[in-house]
Amino acid sequence: MENKKKHYVRPLNIKTGKVEMNFGAGGKASAQLISQLFAKYFNNEYLMQGDDGAYLPEANGHLVMATDSHVVYPLFFSGGNIGGLAVHGTVNDVAVCGAKPLYMSAGFILEEGFPLSELEQIVKTMAEEAQKAGIYIVTGDTKVVEKGKGDGVYINTTGVGVVPHGIRLSGSHCKPGDVIAISGDIGDHGVAIMSQRANLGFETQIQSDSASLNGLTEKLVKEIPSLRCMRDPTRGGLGTTLNEIANQSQVGMKIFEEKIPVKESVMAACEFLGLDPLFVANEGKLIAICGPEDAEKMLEIMRSDPLGEHAQIIGTCVKDENCFVQMETPFGGIRMVDWISGEQLPRIC
Amino acid sequence: MENKKKHYVRPLNIKTGKVEMNFGAGGKASAQLISQLFAKYFNNEYLMQGDDGAYLPEANGHLVMATDSHVVYPLFFSGGNIGGLAVHGTVNDVAVCGAKPLYMSAGFILEEGFPLSELEQIVKTMAEEAQKAGIYIVTGDTKVVEKGKGDGVYINTTGVGVVPHGIRLSGSHCKPGDVIAISGDIGDHGVAIMSQRANLGFETQIQSDSASLNGLTEKLVKEIPSLRCMRDPTRGGLGTTLNEIANQSQVGMKIFEEKIPVKESVMAACEFLGLDPLFVANEGKLIAICGPEDAEKMLEIMRSDPLGEHAQIIGTCVKDENCFVQMETPFGGIRMVDWISGEQLPRIC
Repeated sequence: MENKKKHYVRPLNIKTGKVEMNFGAGGKASAQLISQLFAKYFNNEYLMQGDDGAYLPEANGHLVMATDSHVVYPLFFSGGNIGGLAVHGTVNDVAVCGAKPLYMSAGFILEEGFPLSELEQIVKTMAEEAQKAGIYIVTGDTKVVEKGKGDGVYINTTGVGVVPHGIRLSGSHCKPGDVIAISGDIGDHGVAIMSQRANLGFETQIQSDSASLNGLTEKLVKEIPSLRCMRDPTRGGLGTTLNEIANQSQVGMKIFEEKIPVKESVMAACEFLGLDPLFVANEGKLIAICGPEDAEKMLEIMRSDPLGEHAQIIGTCVKDENCFVQMETPFGGIRMVDWISGEQLPRIC
Repeated sequence: MENKKKHYVRPLNIKTGKVEMNFGAGGKASAQLISQLFAKYFNNEYLMQGDDGAYLPEANGHLVMATDSHVVYPLFFSGGNIGGLAVHGTVNDVAVCGAKPLYMSAGFILEEGFPLSELEQIVKTMAEEAQKAGIYIVTGDTKVVEKGKGDGVYINTTGVGVVPHGIRLSGSHCKPGDVIAISGDIGDHGVAIMSQRANLGFETQIQSDSASLNGLTEKLVKEIPSLRCMRDPTRGGLGTTLNEIANQSQVGMKIFEEKIPVKESVMAACEFLGLDPLFVANEGKLIAICGPEDAEKMLEIMRSDPLGEHAQIIGTCVKDENCFVQMETPFGGIRMVDWISGEQLPRIC
C-alpha cells in the first residue's frame, strides 16, 4: 500500500468503472485504486505508514504464521463472499494454533474488466470481518492480469498472531483416550457453494458458515489445560482433517455417526448432489481435542459461544498403529473414514 | 502444508505430469503434491510441523510484514523465474524497512494443465533463493483453477522480519539536504522481461537483476546512523519511487541524469521499445537516503557489496512544497520526473 498524496489523485468511478490493466502497473492509477478503495476501507495506522512493509509493535510470545489463497467460485454466495472468506480462513488458521491473530496482509489478483462496484463490496466485507475479528490488515498488494487469465478476483491473505506463554498446540499432540469435539453442524459452506453453482433452488437456502473462530479458540486456550489441538475442517471436510490429525499424532480415532451434527437441509442437498457431508468444506467450524478430564468443560465452553451452540463430542482417539479413523453407524456397523482421494469440490475456498 | 504420511502417498509424475484440479482439493492428491514437491524443497522444521499455521520462535523487536503477489509473464526469463522473483520481492520489501527477513509464506495459484516439471523448477529456485537470503518458507497453500482461469502459476509471498532495537526507517523521514543513492544500474529487470516478450534478439541478452538485497540493507542499517529510508524501485521504477518518497516526506528532490547508472544495452533497448529507464522496474536495486554527514560512508558500504558495486549518489532532497522530483540533464536543463500515469509495463513482477 503505497502513497496517498492528494494533488494527483483523480476520482475513481466505482459505480460503473472496471478494473484496467494500469491499476496494477504501480503508477498513478495504482495509487488511485489504493487510496480510494483499499485504504478507505482498511484504514489503520499500520497500513497508512505507506512504506513497502508495515512496521508493527513488538510481539510478546511465539509467533504463528498462516497463509491462504482464495479462489472460491462464485465470488458471492449465500452467507458471504470471497472477501469475508479470505479473512475468516486465515484468522482461523492462526487461531487454531492457539494464537491471537493480530496482523494480516491482503494480496489481490484482479482480472481486467472486473466491476469496481463488486470489488468495493468485497473489500468492504473484508474490512468489516477484520474489524469483527480484531485483526489489522496492515499491508497489501494489487496485481492485474488480462481478461481470461484470472476469474474476477483471487485474494491471498496471510496472518500473523502471537501465542500466549506456555501454550503449544499441535495436531501431533493427541493421545489415545483424548476426546474429539466439533463446534457445530458440518458441511454448510461446501453445500452452499455447490448448490449455488448447480443452480439448485432448495426450499430453504443453505448459507455458508463462514466466520472467524478466534473468539471461541481464545476461550478454549485459556480454560482447557489439556487442550491438545484445534483445527478448522475446510477443504476435505471433517473426514480428511481427522485423518490428518490421526496421522500426525500416530493414533486411531473412533467417531459416532449419530453424534455428528448435520442440518437436515444439508443432508438432503448432499444426497441430491452426491456428496458426503463428512468430506464437505466448512469455514466456521472447529475441531477441538483435549484430555478426557476436560471433555465436559470443553463442550460447555463451546456451547456457550454463539459459534458453538450445536457443539458435540463426536468420539475419541484410540491406539491404532494404522492411524485409521473409524465411524460407528447408528446400527452398530463400522465404516472406515478415508481421505478423500480426488477432487470432490474444486474452488470451494 | 499439511501432512506427510507414508502409506497413502503415491509417486507424483513430475517429469511428464501436469497440474490437475484435484491437486487443490485438499485430499490425497493435495498431500501428494505437498510432500513430493513443496516439502521436499522447502524442507525446514517450521514447515514440517504440519499444522494449519507455523509455530515460530519469539521475536525480539518490532515486526515488519510485507506481501507481494507475483504474476510475471513469461514465468521464465533471462536471469531468473517467477519463483526467485517471489522470494526476492518480499525479502526486499521487508529488508528495506530495516528488518532482518526471517519467515515467509508461499501461496500458489496453479492453472490446470501446468507442467509439473516447470513447477518443480520454480519451487527449486524459490528454495535456493530463500536459503541464500536466510529466510524460511514456513507455511504455504496451493489452489488450482481451471484451464483459462489463470496463467500457469501465480505466487503470493508474504514476509515477516524483525527490526533491530532503535531502528525506524520510513519514506516519511527524509529532510532537505539528505542524500539519495542508488545501488546500481537501473531498468535491467523490466527490459529483460519486455525484450523477451517482444522476442527481441539483442546482441547481448539483458538479464534481470532479480536478487535479495538483505545483505546490503543490514550493513547500511548497522553502519549508517542517519539512514532515513530505503526502498527497492520495482513497478514504476526509480522515477515513481522517488516521487512516492518525496510525497511521503513532503520534500522535493533534485537528481542528476549523468549520475544515474544505466547499462548501454538497457538504454538501447529502452529506445527501441519506447521506454524510459527511469520508470522501468528493477528487482535487485536499492534506493537509500541518509543525512549528508553519512553520504560518503553510505556509498562506500554500497560499493563494497557485490550487489552495489555500481552504486552512485544521484541527488539530494530539497525544500519544495510541491514535492517535485526534478532532474538536471547533462546540458544543464531541468526535466520534471513525474509519476508514470498508466500502464507502462503490465505483469512485470
